[in-house]
Amino acid sequence: MPEREKVVILGGGFAGLRILKDIDRKRFDVHIVDRNNYHGFPPLFYQVASSGLEPADIAFPFRRRLGKDKFPRARFHLGSVVEVDAASQTVITDKERISYDHLVIALGTTNNFFADDSLREKVYTLKSIDEAIRLRNEIILRCERAALESDEGKRREMLTFVVIGGGPAGVEVAGALGELKRYILKREYPEISPDDMTIRLVEGSSRLLGAMSEKASATASEDLGSLMVDVTLGHVMKSFEDGVVTLDDGTAFNAGIVVWTAGVKAVPVNITGHTEDCIYGRGGRIVTDDRCRVKGLGNVYAVGDIGIFTDDMYPQGLPQLAQVAIQEGRFVARCLNRGDWSSPFRYSDRGSMATIGRNKAVADIRGLRLKGWAGWMAWMFIHLVSLMGMRSKLSVLLNWTWSYFTYNTALRILLRGSMYPLRKMEG
Amino acid sequence: MPEREKVVILGGGFAGLRILKDIDRKRFDVHIVDRNNYHGFPPLFYQVASSGLEPADIAFPFRRRLGKDKFPRARFHLGSVVEVDAASQTVITDKERISYDHLVIALGTTNNFFADDSLREKVYTLKSIDEAIRLRNEIILRCERAALESDEGKRREMLTFVVIGGGPAGVEVAGALGELKRYILKREYPEISPDDMTIRLVEGSSRLLGAMSEKASATASEDLGSLMVDVTLGHVMKSFEDGVVTLDDGTAFNAGIVVWTAGVKAVPVNITGHTEDCIYGRGGRIVTDDRCRVKGLGNVYAVGDIGIFTDDMYPQGLPQLAQVAIQEGRFVARCLNRGDWSSPFRYSDRGSMATIGRNKAVADIRGLRLKGWAGWMAWMFIHLVSLMGMRSKLSVLLNWTWSYFTYNTALRILLRGSMYPLRKMEG
Repeated sequence: MPEREKVVILGGGFAGLRILKDIDRKRFDVHIVDRNNYHGFPPLFYQVASSGLEPADIAFPFRRRLGKDKFPRARFHLGSVVEVDAASQTVITDKERISYDHLVIALGTTNNFFADDSLREKVYTLKSIDEAIRLRNEIILRCERAALESDEGKRREMLTFVVIGGGPAGVEVAGALGELKRYILKREYPEISPDDMTIRLVEGSSRLLGAMSEKASATASEDLGSLMVDVTLGHVMKSFEDGVVTLDDGTAFNAGIVVWTAGVKAVPVNITGHTEDCIYGRGGRIVTDDRCRVKGLGNVYAVGDIGIFTDDMYPQGLPQLAQVAIQEGRFVARCLNRGDWSSPFRYSDRGSMATIGRNKAVADIRGLRLKGWAGWMAWMFIHLVSLMGMRSKLSVLLNWTWSYFTYNTALRILLRGSMYPLRKMEG
Repeated sequence: MPEREKVVILGGGFAGLRILKDIDRKRFDVHIVDRNNYHGFPPLFYQVASSGLEPADIAFPFRRRLGKDKFPRARFHLGSVVEVDAASQTVITDKERISYDHLVIALGTTNNFFADDSLREKVYTLKSIDEAIRLRNEIILRCERAALESDEGKRREMLTFVVIGGGPAGVEVAGALGELKRYILKREYPEISPDDMTIRLVEGSSRLLGAMSEKASATASEDLGSLMVDVTLGHVMKSFEDGVVTLDDGTAFNAGIVVWTAGVKAVPVNITGHTEDCIYGRGGRIVTDDRCRVKGLGNVYAVGDIGIFTDDMYPQGLPQLAQVAIQEGRFVARCLNRGDWSSPFRYSDRGSMATIGRNKAVADIRGLRLKGWAGWMAWMFIHLVSLMGMRSKLSVLLNWTWSYFTYNTALRILLRGSMYPLRKMEG
C-alpha cells in the first residue's frame, strides 16, 4: 500500500461523521477527534431533557462504528481542540499533538449569550447531551422540591419555566414542559396543582419557527396554547437577575429557571500560523469558498455549522442545519476522494420539521405542509431512520411506543453520578 | 374514612418497596422517603458500570409506581434522613420534618472501608447507580487515555484493574472487565493490546462466593481464569497508596484503579430520644427482635440489610440479601395490616446465584447446582422477572440480546453531564 495522506477530522457531528463514512480509507489515513467518545443526535437532545429518552438512545460510540470498518480503519482520538497550527500542519488537543495533510474542521456551534456572558452560569441550555441531562435533573428536582413546599407562592415561583427562543429547540422543549404540566403532574405529583406550573416561551421575532412556513408557525402557536404554554412574540430578554426576567419593553416576571435556546455561535478554533487576516465571519463562523475550503489555507476545510460561504442564493450563508452539514460532508469527502474540487457545493433543501407534543408536529417538506398526527408520524419516522445504529432505533421506538400508550415518560430518574470528579484521568 | 395511622418508610430498596406494595393503604396513611427518586436494582449495578445496561433500565421512579396506586395513594418524599427523634416520633430529613405513628427503617447498607476511611476517596465502589456510573466513566476514560499513550509501561499501569472482594459483586465486575479485555478491546481499541490490560481479584477467604456451594466457587474461579482474570485467594489488601496495592503478606503490585466490594455496613441512622442503650449491633445494624421491631421502640421497625436479630439457626443474624429484605418487608406489612405480631419472622432460603460472563454463571437453587449456559439462562430469567416495570424488562432484554449477538456492550458512552452542580435546588 502506498503512503497514504493523513486526514484529520475535528468533530464527529453530522458533518464529521458523514466524511468519516464516505472518505476512501484506502487512499487516506483517517483520524477523528472529538471531546466526547460518541456521536450525539442533537434533534432529540430536548427529549433527554424531558426524560423521554436516555442518553444512550441517541449517542453512538465512535469506536463501535470504527470497529465495523474494513481495514484500513479510521482512528478515534478523545480530546478537546486547543489550537490548529496551520504552519506546521498540527492539531493540538488537550491530550496530544496530531499532524495532518488535510484538516476538516467540523466542530459545530455552541451557545451564544451575546452581550451577557454571565448568563452562562444562570441559564440552562441544550447544545449537548451533558447540558440536556443537567436540565433534566433540574426539572425533576424542582418538581420534587415543589411537592414538599407548602407555601403556594414559593411553589409557583419554583415551577416557572421560561424558554427563550422560538426556534425548533425552544418550541420542542416548551412543548415537552407543557406535556409534563398537562399529563404527568396530576398523576405523579398530587401535591402540585397543574396551575402551580407556568411555562413561558419568549421569541424575538414576530413568529415561532421563523425558518418554516407561516402556516407551520401558526400551528405551533396553537399547539403550544393547547399545552398551556404562554407564548410572547416580538420581544427579547434584556436581563435575568435574582429570579426575574426583564424583556426589552420593561415587562418583568418571575422565572424559576430560564432555558436558553436563543442563539448559537461557532465553536471558537484558534488557528495560528496562517497569513490571511480575516477568516472568521458572522457568528464566529470560518469563512470558506463555495467548496468548503478555508480561505488562504488550501488543505483545511470547514464543514457544517462552523463554516460559512455566501452566494447569490444565500447572501447570509447557508442555514445551520443537519441537512447542510450532511451534504457538505458528503461533498468534501467526494472531492477529497477524487482529488477534484472543480464544482462548487450545491445545497438541496429537503424541508424542515418540529414537534410540539403528542400528535402535534409541523413539517414543511418541499410543497407539502403537514401538521397534527400526520406531521407527528412524519417527524417520528424521519428521526427514527436518521438515528445511527439499530439498537438505538429499537430502544427509541420502545420508549416512544411506551410513552404514547401511557401518556408518560418512563425515565424520570435523577442521577447525580458523574458529579464525582473524574479527577484522575480527565484533562 | 376513619383517621388513619401514619406509616413512614425510610428507604425504597427491596424491603421498603415490598412494604409499600403490601401495606393496606385504606388502613394506613403511607409515606416513603428516599434520597433518590427511584428504586434501583443492586444486582445489576455492575452492568451499568460495565456499559451493558443504562441506569434507566434498572431504576424505577417511585412516583410512577405511586401514580398507579388506587386511592388512597402513598406519598413520596425526596430527602436524606438526618435524624429520627423517637421521643417526638419525627423523622428529620435534609428538607423537612415528618411525623409518624409507625416508622420502618429500611435504608440498607453502604460501603465499609473498615480501618482505612481514606479509601473512600481513592477507590471505586458499586453500592448505588451513581457509583456505578462513576466507575463506568473511569473505565471508559482509562481506555481512551491508554489508546493515546505510546509508552507501553504507562499504558499497562493505567489499565491495571484491581477488584477487592470475591463475593457476587466482585466476581461479576471482574468478569465484566475480563470480557472487555477478551472481546471488546481488540475490536474497538486497536491501539491497545489485550496484554496491556490486567485484572486482579483479591479475596480474603479461601474461596470465591463464600455464601455459595464449593462447586460454585470452583466454577467461578475457572470461569474467571478463562476471562484472564488473576484471582488471589486468602489475602486482604492492607493499603492502597500512590497507585500501589499492598496485601497482608507484603506482596505489592501496581493498580490503576481499585474497585472495592469487600465490605458493607449499615447506613448510619441517628436515633435520638430513646432509652435503650445499645440498639446497634454487628456492622452497625439496628438490633431488633425476631419480628423486626427495634428493641425498646415499639413502633419502629428495621427491615432488610439494616436490621439484625439472631436466633439458633442464624447466630450471626440473617445474611444481607435481597431475598431476606423482600421477605421481611412482606412480613412487617402483614403484621401491620393485621395488627398481629404473635408469630416470628421465618426466612425461606430460595438459593443464590452469580454471573461471571457470557454463558458463564453459577446458581445454587435448593438442591440444584447450575453452571455454564444453564446457570446463565437461569440467572437472566430470574433477574428479568425480578425487575420492576415492563418497560425496564423489555429494555434489558433488548440490551442483553444485542450484547449476546454482537459480543459487545452498546452503551459505552462517557457522560459528564451531571457534574454541573445542581446548585440551585439541591440541599
